[in-house]
Amino acid sequence: MLQNRLLIDAALGKPVERVPVWLMRQAGRVLPEYRAVRAQAKNFIEFVKNPELAAEVTIQPVDILGVDAAIIFSDILVIPEAMGLPYEMIEARGPFFRNTIKTKSDIDNLKIAEAQDLNYVMQALQLSKKNLNNRVPLIGFAGAPFTILAYMVEGGGSKTFSKAKQFLYTQPELAHALLEKITQSTINYLKGQIECGVNLIQLFDSWAGVLSESMFYEFSLRYMSKIVDALDGKVPTTIFAKDAHYAIKKISETNCNTIGLDWTISANAARTAAGNKTLQGNADPCLLYANEEVIVKETHAMLKQFDKQNYICNLGHGLYPDLEKSKVKLFVDTVKGFSY
Amino acid sequence: MLQNRLLIDAALGKPVERVPVWLMRQAGRVLPEYRAVRAQAKNFIEFVKNPELAAEVTIQPVDILGVDAAIIFSDILVIPEAMGLPYEMIEARGPFFRNTIKTKSDIDNLKIAEAQDLNYVMQALQLSKKNLNNRVPLIGFAGAPFTILAYMVEGGGSKTFSKAKQFLYTQPELAHALLEKITQSTINYLKGQIECGVNLIQLFDSWAGVLSESMFYEFSLRYMSKIVDALDGKVPTTIFAKDAHYAIKKISETNCNTIGLDWTISANAARTAAGNKTLQGNADPCLLYANEEVIVKETHAMLKQFDKQNYICNLGHGLYPDLEKSKVKLFVDTVKGFSY
Repeated sequence: MLQNRLLIDAALGKPVERVPVWLMRQAGRVLPEYRAVRAQAKNFIEFVKNPELAAEVTIQPVDILGVDAAIIFSDILVIPEAMGLPYEMIEARGPFFRNTIKTKSDIDNLKIAEAQDLNYVMQALQLSKKNLNNRVPLIGFAGAPFTILAYMVEGGGSKTFSKAKQFLYTQPELAHALLEKITQSTINYLKGQIECGVNLIQLFDSWAGVLSESMFYEFSLRYMSKIVDALDGKVPTTIFAKDAHYAIKKISETNCNTIGLDWTISANAARTAAGNKTLQGNADPCLLYANEEVIVKETHAMLKQFDKQNYICNLGHGLYPDLEKSKVKLFVDTVKGFSY
Repeated sequence: MLQNRLLIDAALGKPVERVPVWLMRQAGRVLPEYRAVRAQAKNFIEFVKNPELAAEVTIQPVDILGVDAAIIFSDILVIPEAMGLPYEMIEARGPFFRNTIKTKSDIDNLKIAEAQDLNYVMQALQLSKKNLNNRVPLIGFAGAPFTILAYMVEGGGSKTFSKAKQFLYTQPELAHALLEKITQSTINYLKGQIECGVNLIQLFDSWAGVLSESMFYEFSLRYMSKIVDALDGKVPTTIFAKDAHYAIKKISETNCNTIGLDWTISANAARTAAGNKTLQGNADPCLLYANEEVIVKETHAMLKQFDKQNYICNLGHGLYPDLEKSKVKLFVDTVKGFSY
């Protein structure tokens, strides 16, 4: 059905004609066209909850940048909200939870979210699928349970997430109870996404990097692995645990199909740890500030290091809002035009 | 002369009776006694510039926590200030530079700092040495040139330091010129510290983690290595490049004596990469939020993993201000009481 299967074939380890490319946060402020649509919503959360607007910006990068996949425009924090813990998005500061999780009763009061609790995402997915018309795959996503816990306990962003980690160190049983509830909610949510037609699922553990190795395995990877298993191979899955450099091998031993890499991990080190598992990444977003010659040269070097098969080209983190659209497009075009 | 040489012997790879222990940010807000002295200064920068107060809080942790070394109370950003780029410390936000470095003429206008430009630090060191009376070694320090550049270009703290990295990507020649000037200033500063009697020097590359591996070698490690070489082995040196997990082997190939580790690196991985070079670290500061039993158990596990020789016990980052003093002391006592 899909006219462009590059992403799916690469994720499944099948041979590809060329390396597929998409960009984390491609449906975002880097595109003036996104900012125009964004201006139609009262605030960020209303924007996320508006299926028509969300679907519109989901498709924009396919048309404008020529990427090989769309990723649904949404936010990882829709899960806490669906569980009963709403958040606000404060301009230039980020997410903020008026109430946070501290006690057993806080956790008991959370519900396990069902896909229909996130109906606005399901509608955005259906609209996106319809309007994409099978030109490219549609990627669905969710936050990793640890990253969701981190926000629910910390109450917002943080350099150290020391409150969230204090919770893990002092109340590990409660932490596991909360992670279990988030995991069940996420499984329901992602099954709903698959029913709406997403072609690949990515889990974002944005704050894995604040954990030590043993804590990452105990409080993060086991829950991501559980989610991957529950999806039962219906679509390929990607685990992206930012800054969990030590965990590539352990991630490769889960049933996920693709491992997302940040830019601090070399292609060689990742390949050695991951065996034949498909790798995704990992250009430094700041490379796209450089002049055109440097962008092309460094992108070529990266493509050679990762090699053509079992590889999906992307950045090592989301696009920064102040990057120039023309340079982002140059990156995409450079990948698409490269011959091994 | 030194009554307690554990730190120096461990740094030099000599056999020790027990593992030495000190804590990054031990002269800090975790001690009520520090907060009492801090209250005597108008603001943080006046505090740093007051040799009597700085010396007083430098010695406090030796008396109160029983650590095996004092580290001079100061700030890595005294170097930009001495070069002609002053900063402010804004409560609950961190450092802020009203002027930042953007152009060649900005760099040309910076002076190369001499030790006498930082006379208040020299005085604080002399006072600290005198009052320590050789009970334990005194550690001097400076920021790594890349971390100093990052603040000078970015203008303050940042999750991504994307402005600083944009500078490296777009104006690498200017970046190297600036790094060279910072390096020369730092060498002058650290030579002055050695003349004042410091027994060991630590370089802090607090923001190494925002760089890719190749950029870390190009823009950070070569300058740290240059500083280490310029100090010519007069005192042992430690390089701590936070989150540069890939670089342990390359750091071990410099002439530094000790490698500081953050808590995302396992003892085994670090030892494999570093050979016999002395390692320092790496407990997660958040461990000290845990109950006493967990603190003791995890500290014992860490001590066993690192083994007794060629090892200095510390955290993987600075103490967080809201940790309890009694638990910090428990950590120190646990290390000092451990038998291999």
